[in-house]
Amino acid sequence: MRARELGITIGDLEPGPRNSIADVAGVRVGHTTLIEGDDVRTGVSVVIPADEPVFAGAHRLNGNGELTGLEWIRESGLLTTPVGLTNTHSVGVVRDALVAAAVASSDAPSWSLPVVGETWDGRLNDVNGFHVRPEHVHAALEAGSTDVAEGNVGGGTGMVCHGFKGGIGTASRVTGDGHTVGVLVQANHGRRARLQIDGVPVGKELGPDRIPLPTDVPAGSIIVLVATDAPLLPHQCVRIAQRASFGIARTGGAGENTSGDLVLAWATANRKLEGSEVLALEMLPNDSIDPLFYAAIEATEEAIVNALLAAETMTGRGVTVERLDPDALVEVMARHGRLASSP
Amino acid sequence: MRARELGITIGDLEPGPRNSIADVAGVRVGHTTLIEGDDVRTGVSVVIPADEPVFAGAHRLNGNGELTGLEWIRESGLLTTPVGLTNTHSVGVVRDALVAAAVASSDAPSWSLPVVGETWDGRLNDVNGFHVRPEHVHAALEAGSTDVAEGNVGGGTGMVCHGFKGGIGTASRVTGDGHTVGVLVQANHGRRARLQIDGVPVGKELGPDRIPLPTDVPAGSIIVLVATDAPLLPHQCVRIAQRASFGIARTGGAGENTSGDLVLAWATANRKLEGSEVLALEMLPNDSIDPLFYAAIEATEEAIVNALLAAETMTGRGVTVERLDPDALVEVMARHGRLASSP
Amino acid sequence: MRARELGITIGDLEPGPRNSIADVAGVRVGHTTLIEGDDVRTGVSVVIPADEPVFAGAHRLNGNGELTGLEWIRESGLLTTPVGLTNTHSVGVVRDALVAAAVASSDAPSWSLPVVGETWDGRLNDVNGFHVRPEHVHAALEAGSTDVAEGNVGGGTGMVCHGFKGGIGTASRVTGDGHTVGVLVQANHGRRARLQIDGVPVGKELGPDRIPLPTDVPAGSIIVLVATDAPLLPHQCVRIAQRASFGIARTGGAGENTSGDLVLAWATANRKLEGSEVLALEMLPNDSIDPLFYAAIEATEEAIVNALLAAETMTGRGVTVERLDPDALVEVMARHGRLASSP
Amino acid sequence: MRARELGITIGDLEPGPRNSIADVAGVRVGHTTLIEGDDVRTGVSVVIPADEPVFAGAHRLNGNGELTGLEWIRESGLLTTPVGLTNTHSVGVVRDALVAAAVASSDAPSWSLPVVGETWDGRLNDVNGFHVRPEHVHAALEAGSTDVAEGNVGGGTGMVCHGFKGGIGTASRVTGDGHTVGVLVQANHGRRARLQIDGVPVGKELGPDRIPLPTDVPAGSIIVLVATDAPLLPHQCVRIAQRASFGIARTGGAGENTSGDLVLAWATANRKLEGSEVLALEMLPNDSIDPLFYAAIEATEEAIVNALLAAETMTGRGVTVERLDPDALVEVMARHGRLASSP
Repeated sequence: MRARELGITIGDLEPGPRNSIADVAGVRVGHTTLIEGDDVRTGVSVVIPADEPVFAGAHRLNGNGELTGLEWIRESGLLTTPVGLTNTHSVGVVRDALVAAAVASSDAPSWSLPVVGETWDGRLNDVNGFHVRPEHVHAALEAGSTDVAEGNVGGGTGMVCHGFKGGIGTASRVTGDGHTVGVLVQANHGRRARLQIDGVPVGKELGPDRIPLPTDVPAGSIIVLVATDAPLLPHQCVRIAQRASFGIARTGGAGENTSGDLVLAWATANRKLEGSEVLALEMLPNDSIDPLFYAAIEATEEAIVNALLAAETMTGRGVTVERLDPDALVEVMARHGRLASSP
Repeated sequence: MRARELGITIGDLEPGPRNSIADVAGVRVGHTTLIEGDDVRTGVSVVIPADEPVFAGAHRLNGNGELTGLEWIRESGLLTTPVGLTNTHSVGVVRDALVAAAVASSDAPSWSLPVVGETWDGRLNDVNGFHVRPEHVHAALEAGSTDVAEGNVGGGTGMVCHGFKGGIGTASRVTGDGHTVGVLVQANHGRRARLQIDGVPVGKELGPDRIPLPTDVPAGSIIVLVATDAPLLPHQCVRIAQRASFGIARTGGAGENTSGDLVLAWATANRKLEGSEVLALEMLPNDSIDPLFYAAIEATEEAIVNALLAAETMTGRGVTVERLDPDALVEVMARHGRLASSP
Repeated sequence: MRARELGITIGDLEPGPRNSIADVAGVRVGHTTLIEGDDVRTGVSVVIPADEPVFAGAHRLNGNGELTGLEWIRESGLLTTPVGLTNTHSVGVVRDALVAAAVASSDAPSWSLPVVGETWDGRLNDVNGFHVRPEHVHAALEAGSTDVAEGNVGGGTGMVCHGFKGGIGTASRVTGDGHTVGVLVQANHGRRARLQIDGVPVGKELGPDRIPLPTDVPAGSIIVLVATDAPLLPHQCVRIAQRASFGIARTGGAGENTSGDLVLAWATANRKLEGSEVLALEMLPNDSIDPLFYAAIEATEEAIVNALLAAETMTGRGVTVERLDPDALVEVMARHGRLASSP
Repeated sequence: MRARELGITIGDLEPGPRNSIADVAGVRVGHTTLIEGDDVRTGVSVVIPADEPVFAGAHRLNGNGELTGLEWIRESGLLTTPVGLTNTHSVGVVRDALVAAAVASSDAPSWSLPVVGETWDGRLNDVNGFHVRPEHVHAALEAGSTDVAEGNVGGGTGMVCHGFKGGIGTASRVTGDGHTVGVLVQANHGRRARLQIDGVPVGKELGPDRIPLPTDVPAGSIIVLVATDAPLLPHQCVRIAQRASFGIARTGGAGENTSGDLVLAWATANRKLEGSEVLALEMLPNDSIDPLFYAAIEATEEAIVNALLAAETMTGRGVTVERLDPDALVEVMARHGRLASSP
């Protein structure tokens, strides 16, 4: 169940055919989900941005998190590896496994500085058990597909978002110029009372009295990945990345202190960016960038909502985190007149 | 007329007694408003942050604007001068006039690097006429008061915000810890269709058919000043500054390309920050900072709405920009159930 | 008298034909020098980067200074105006005069956010007298030439560098790929004892016993402008800008606290960067950028030395600041075996 | 053999008693060195900054490298974990092992975002063999001591610096105010021809004809850690970090494109920085910071030279990298008159 299927239409732009990050050609996503016994609720997702280096940029909303590889992205303007997403304490194993996969590949680089992000799933998962292993990373890499699963999958398996069950979500937008912006989030952030969907104070309307709230959940983190096929330069990717944070703002996030809210954006239009000879590029001029800003905002909002809607209620480590019940949400949205007539 | 008087209550925290940036002790604001003939609709505002240097930090949402003095603030962590706000082409005269005022003062510094921000009022004002003069700056400095006028005053005189008449607005919030966050905006940004107040799509409901929209207004700029009496260090002021941008996000801003959206935050609790001897300071730990984040978001939202509500319809250079009619707004908010019962 | 004429050859790369920033095609420099009575020792320089917007980036070594316009450069990646250099308290008048010149030009922009930097000349100049006026800026603009005067000229008129008379200096380098890097400095920074030229501790060898040192000169500031004809993107301009700071390091600068050490770099190869249609660009790949790094370091070093050598002893406000005597320098360099055989 | 024992005295300030990073009270360093068979020449070093969180800041000279944990340091201003140093492809295993050590400790945190840096040792070491294992990290942690080994040890085992054998080096300086600055480098950067020691062009004088140069060594990377007992705030730590890069500049580094040149600085004076209550701090005012800048520059220069001098000639993967022969260096320095009379 996704937001649009319920009649929730966020913003003005249309989604792409998959309404996912995979609407940007070349982007693939694979998940390995680990749900074992009472305590293992974790996993790893791998997002393949393109088959070769592309321009990229990053934005830090709140830095209580990790996203490895950012220094080289900021310096070079290039994203040169797949992006791993996992839990806070498994960043290292995922990183080294991505290095190993790179050096085992046909075009083995001399060195690799992979990008791995995390959010903390220690409420539902035995995060100190280090359950993610290299083979899980390799499996996620091989599972890379344009069919993007959402909710309790991959790195998003054990996440909590605005006091509901969170996880992986995705969405996309197409601008009037025909450029696509796709977003994927690993959503583990936000407080219940602040959740707002399309302007409706859903979190207040669906308070703990309506849907139980796990106690003592710190405001967690959100990793946002933004892909576009518009010909952006690295400094423009940085601009897009900051706009994605506005999608967090509009759904009630605040970049709380305990939250690691990091955004990575990349642009796939320019290729063959390495070598030593002068390269020919294309650039979308700044004067035409606003639609991409709006697209990044809208797609991030909708990806967060999709993460909430796709996630199922989960019990782990003796704690149960409830999903955002679609029926309850529909009721609230309808009452506020924010539901499309024909969902 | 201010948002709260209409029954619009944004967020969860309570405002301070003035619901203005002057709720932070020591902050004063003065305006010189220039409305002359058919073409002069401009002015200058001066915000005095404190009587001595205080810690500060800045955030750039979109850099199509000027805010002088930022390099020294970023390096030193200190805000050492008043802050001037004016139109885009009068930044220089305001800056040098603030220098002159400093060197004429009793504690004349050897040098001064004042902070002056701007937004572009060329739609209603003869911005290329350079009508702001040093005496206007001095008058605004001397007019500094805790009674903060809003709307078509000072630097905000000729501004346009979300396709309505914009200008100066202010608001404040008090956290549970008793810290105050005050915000002042010079609001000249945003597109009509994107305006959202307390989650309600006001800009769509009050479209050009309801309230005329001046043609060809580029998405302008917003300068946000955030003051707090919480004992924040400079890097924490930067964090607060980014959260103020979330108030822009929540009212429908996007940091459009033609917009100069710059935020400056300062914290007045620590004093006597100069000299050569080791200083004693206080610091609010990061674990207690979230309420200030929420306060900065809410106060920025409300300051934008207050700017819209205080501004009167204005004609300049043959163009008329309509105010956001309070009655129309009340009607829309009520219809969406977002009006407090007793406005 | 310039460094190379004395037999001082810094680094390994060759200079361009002028050994100046004007070796980058399109760059022009004009000065207005104000030396009047006992107390006026100041001026303004204008550097025209190109006849249209070009890519640019900036680096802050130490922010105790002003360089207006940086927020838009950082956001857009574009340098769209001439660059003014003047004294600390005249930034405003120069800025507004550059705005006025832009709006008076044939391709008048709707708005202008000019770049104006400064260093403090209050030791030799009546900096609080605000002697730079708009007509001086216009004169410097009109004087723009590829023949770049050095020393006590323009914005550099009253400057002090490493305890010697400082001012404007320039130099250039050509890489093996045929790209030119040109640097212009307004040098007002550094302590005598730390001055090092081509590895030789010149400042210690030419201590106050040899050449008088004005008392109580704070370590001032240096503005560095770097132009290149290599096809760099904005993020690569930022990289070049940081390398220019290494030229400061190698001559004994340290980015002292009272110093405003700001670097602006631009790349003239890509043109027609505005409009709304997708643009065709060229980019020098990162793998070929090292020679430009070395060029920026070397040219900055030599520009500082050229500023010192071109500046003449000056008396102002009753203070005399001695030049770095070329004969004394030659003697020191020769003694250290660092002089080319045929100066 | 260290620089000072040879009579090489860099700069004006005196070193602390150990002339190492451990002159800052509380700092300890441990190494695990892996030299096995023909191909394993690597290891891991762990630097313990303090027994509790301290203020910190970072600077990127060139980002072709990894230093995990930076986003949280930049956001919070706090360094909360030990710092691991290893080879490029072992960052993950070191990171997760540091997490495991933290969660196994008595004051186990809910989550951990450790700081791990790297430089590439693939010339001498089988970097794709992933030879660093968790037990090596734990051993380095337990080996933490104030007696800091240099050269071919720990993370520095297989490094190459300016075409000589590189590795770990350390040095310190004490300011007139009695504050200590200690530096530790993992030096794997630079080109032979650019090496400069105390202003002497050592790399040119000791060219490949004098001391063989391994072919095809890319300019590598350097990680610089700077500790001080001065009461600096986070933004001041950032300032110190940038000055450390000037020590790289002065020895001939340029932040080449293939180099990951990252600096982390921390200040141990302020403690008890966590919790929710307002904290009492001390701050060194900016006006007193210059001596720390000079100290950071000098200590970084000397740490690089100490790394070169401590490293022994090493053969790995069939390649031999020669040390910087102390006798040859002494001869060159003496010829340039840069040797203290009584070494």
